[in-house]
Amino acid sequence: MKNRIAYCVSDHTGVTVEAVAKSVLSQFPAFEFSLITLPFIDNHEKVQSAIERIARTPDALVFSTLTDPALRDRLRDSTPSLFDVFDLLSPAVETALGHAATPSGGRTHGMAHNYESRMDAVNFSLALDDGLQPQRLDQADLILIGVSRVGKTPTALYLALQYGLRVANYPLTPEDLAQSSLPQPLLAQLPRLRGLTLSAERLAAIRQARYPDSRYASLAQCREELAAAERFYALHAIPVIDTTRMSVEEIAARLRSA
Amino acid sequence: MKNRIAYCVSDHTGVTVEAVAKSVLSQFPAFEFSLITLPFIDNHEKVQSAIERIARTPDALVFSTLTDPALRDRLRDSTPSLFDVFDLLSPAVETALGHAATPSGGRTHGMAHNYESRMDAVNFSLALDDGLQPQRLDQADLILIGVSRVGKTPTALYLALQYGLRVANYPLTPEDLAQSSLPQPLLAQLPRLRGLTLSAERLAAIRQARYPDSRYASLAQCREELAAAERFYALHAIPVIDTTRMSVEEIAARLRSA
Repeated sequence: MKNRIAYCVSDHTGVTVEAVAKSVLSQFPAFEFSLITLPFIDNHEKVQSAIERIARTPDALVFSTLTDPALRDRLRDSTPSLFDVFDLLSPAVETALGHAATPSGGRTHGMAHNYESRMDAVNFSLALDDGLQPQRLDQADLILIGVSRVGKTPTALYLALQYGLRVANYPLTPEDLAQSSLPQPLLAQLPRLRGLTLSAERLAAIRQARYPDSRYASLAQCREELAAAERFYALHAIPVIDTTRMSVEEIAARLRSA
Repeated sequence: MKNRIAYCVSDHTGVTVEAVAKSVLSQFPAFEFSLITLPFIDNHEKVQSAIERIARTPDALVFSTLTDPALRDRLRDSTPSLFDVFDLLSPAVETALGHAATPSGGRTHGMAHNYESRMDAVNFSLALDDGLQPQRLDQADLILIGVSRVGKTPTALYLALQYGLRVANYPLTPEDLAQSSLPQPLLAQLPRLRGLTLSAERLAAIRQARYPDSRYASLAQCREELAAAERFYALHAIPVIDTTRMSVEEIAARLRSA
């Protein structure tokens, strides 16, 4: 495995340029890349420091989403392997729009928007975490349901932070699962429900880390709870996501489009 | 303002291609863009549906991070204004590495990695939210401090979800602020502390939405608390972030590099 350093240079947070670099570099599995992000490179002094740092690794790759033309020129002049996202994409977009780009340094680009509504969504999702405040479930965009430790809370928070969705989550306890239908507060909200599941082996491993050698963490108990939850999902035609091999981004994107 | 639709086509979550599209399109402020994300386009049937949907808007822009060569060819053949991130970036990277890309459909690209450590970080950040479990503060990567409603919880959760950092948060109450130094559990962890602040006007507006016309939400009270918190930050040389005009991504990236 060949090792290479890849710098991600941004005049803002670096979230976009990191995502691009990871995507492109995943197409080169023969290499192992170490990513170093240099965020907030938004004036000549910082560009100069970045150039000096990059120059210490002559074979480094450099991805950039700098927007200010003067800063971009300066970086380009001193960096052999530079991949400037705007240089590579903007000309094609200019042609399609029949309109010249107006690059301006420091403009907030990427995912930084709707701060208020996303923070409201996070606060909502925390307030309705783990079955809290069931009387407010009708205010949710989505309600995630599933057994203990299936990943409801992180998924709800990711959907709130990334997409500004108000996502409640409600646990299905062994007592709930022993009934013939879903708990009453959920029955009133069927269209909003999304079921999470995962493999019994994964669930047992997750529970085991928390309560070693408990009945709660036993494979038999996990199998029984998951099977009962899945019967409820089938009974009410609730969309289900199996999270066994998914990242939280993937789970969230699938739930959003379910 | 001219309106245009921009499609973001991905064989995975679409997080990367959305970030790229937003970045590039922010360079064209004369247009108003509506972004439509088509995630999980990972077989010929789904590409065909995407093509048919896109064809209904002849002047739409289309950004793509499809990786499978056959799917990319098919989309390219039927989409006039296609910006294929890999087509545009990969050749330059291939030249720099002296190695051909091996594009493979369905490979997880982008930010989907370290699921376990990120979920652990979220659980940690929730367990140490709002001053809970101060005896575990020494296990935190960062400890966010600040007055009520300054944005500690969402920021901590974002750092956990995005970067896998274990981030506690600890409120500075009016009682804490009346003392001559920081609360004891924080004094033992000075290098881990990061202070949040924001404008008194913004804080008052945020508190007002929650407790209208309370003393808690008054501008005078907000000014007093923020000034006292900032005196503590200065006293202990704690790095400070003013969140007044920042997105959660920006706050997180600055804290991470502080």
